[in-house]
Amino acid sequence: MNHKSDTPVTVIGLGLMGQALAGAFLRGGHPTTVWNRTASKADKLAAEGARPAPTAADALRASPLTIVCVTDYRAVHELLGADDAALDGTTLINLTSGTSAQAREAARWAGRRGARYLDGAIMAVPPAIGTDEAVILHSGPQADFEAHRSTLGALGAVTYLGADHGLASLYDVAGLAMMWSVLNAWLQGTAMLRTAGVDAATYAPFAQRIAAGVAEWLPGYAEQIDSGSFPAEVSALETDVRAMAHLIEESEAVGVSAELPKMIKAMADRSIAAGHGGEQYPVLIEEFGRPSTG
Amino acid sequence: MNHKSDTPVTVIGLGLMGQALAGAFLRGGHPTTVWNRTASKADKLAAEGARPAPTAADALRASPLTIVCVTDYRAVHELLGADDAALDGTTLINLTSGTSAQAREAARWAGRRGARYLDGAIMAVPPAIGTDEAVILHSGPQADFEAHRSTLGALGAVTYLGADHGLASLYDVAGLAMMWSVLNAWLQGTAMLRTAGVDAATYAPFAQRIAAGVAEWLPGYAEQIDSGSFPAEVSALETDVRAMAHLIEESEAVGVSAELPKMIKAMADRSIAAGHGGEQYPVLIEEFGRPSTG
Repeated sequence: MNHKSDTPVTVIGLGLMGQALAGAFLRGGHPTTVWNRTASKADKLAAEGARPAPTAADALRASPLTIVCVTDYRAVHELLGADDAALDGTTLINLTSGTSAQAREAARWAGRRGARYLDGAIMAVPPAIGTDEAVILHSGPQADFEAHRSTLGALGAVTYLGADHGLASLYDVAGLAMMWSVLNAWLQGTAMLRTAGVDAATYAPFAQRIAAGVAEWLPGYAEQIDSGSFPAEVSALETDVRAMAHLIEESEAVGVSAELPKMIKAMADRSIAAGHGGEQYPVLIEEFGRPSTG
Repeated sequence: MNHKSDTPVTVIGLGLMGQALAGAFLRGGHPTTVWNRTASKADKLAAEGARPAPTAADALRASPLTIVCVTDYRAVHELLGADDAALDGTTLINLTSGTSAQAREAARWAGRRGARYLDGAIMAVPPAIGTDEAVILHSGPQADFEAHRSTLGALGAVTYLGADHGLASLYDVAGLAMMWSVLNAWLQGTAMLRTAGVDAATYAPFAQRIAAGVAEWLPGYAEQIDSGSFPAEVSALETDVRAMAHLIEESEAVGVSAELPKMIKAMADRSIAAGHGGEQYPVLIEEFGRPSTG
């Protein structure tokens, strides 16, 4: 990718992630201005060539593009809102963790102050920043993203999701739900197999193959959801629940947690109770799509 | 694979799956004897060249290898136990769904009657039988498996797990837990993204990539479990739970189910309460490995 390495950038917020972001820009050759509420956090970056700004407003004014990565959205408003004039005409990319509603509200807030605004989410740990392992999601006006795509490329695998500022947050937590679910299912299986003397390393490749194999079904299953029609082409929910009962029975018999198995069956049972026993698994979107009572 | 297509085989139990198994043996050129409690279920297979036996004992005596696929283990004992002498010297492969304890007990039961016994599990739907898509797990004495591996190859991707007869059942339900967990996480994400107008087909490739990517971590994470040491090389649990709280908050804010997100956080919260907040995710094996109270 063609990084315009002479583009100045500012990074506000120098926690572990903010430091990693600034470090990646420096390695990419960008003149990099940094600012943090506790100024000493900039010391290491300054030694590597970053320019610490005396105030957040000065940091904003130093570059046409500012990356913000702070604790939460309240901090974003506090730190950037001290001098509204500094926002006028700049582009903010807010990589702070928050909800889709907070992202949309921040976009309106920035817009009122004359700033272009993209919301983003980092699906990576700090050490991965600057490598293709680091997936960084962006949402907001596409033209604003495209204007800085090459600069942002210094940070990792930069992805654009759409104009709705809330998308980055939504994809982020959806991806995390997948991450924890794969890990939890693997832990459930590992716990069961260990009772038979099978070590985690022996079971892991099997779990890996199943997870990757099932993931390949998703685009096909998505067609059922988008069409709102769930014919039991492969298996009917009422058949699936018998195997779910086996999973619960086996978990209890070998003395491991049955909490995840029971939740799996509870969702399916509710869908069957709602009349969907003869349909296929993706019909559960109706259960996932309504507020839980718990 | 070199199928010894002249090896006679017997299939007992002609539900949808049993019929698919017998059909695959017939297509593989094996002289195939079949039996079912309701004899008419053999008609279609007989027309394709199978030989219906008058009794289960006759079916057992017709071939050195018998595949059993019936409703449950009680049916296995009922149907095969009517004439103990018919079991002496034969090899049984029991593909009936059940628990690891039932498999081990059935192996002892068969052994007392002079039969060699392998327990198995079919990770496939009937239409996939006879293709590489059909993963069929086997456990029991390796020599007995190897003696019939080429014949079994007619059924699908035949896998040997180990000498413990309970392994096929355990791997089966562990694999199913992974399957449902990937699907549920995808449904959770799909439900969230749909609130922002993103259709299931648009989100599916993202979910697929995350699931496959996380699956690649499992062998590495397994090393932590096998060593019993969980240093926070990538992320500490107490950092993870903040993102879990975001997932719950976002699910509730957009009006979808928060049941899965809450279960994810509850497991992590318990591990933190047990003093593991500074350790890495696989330390949750301790939570998954103990009986749940619910």
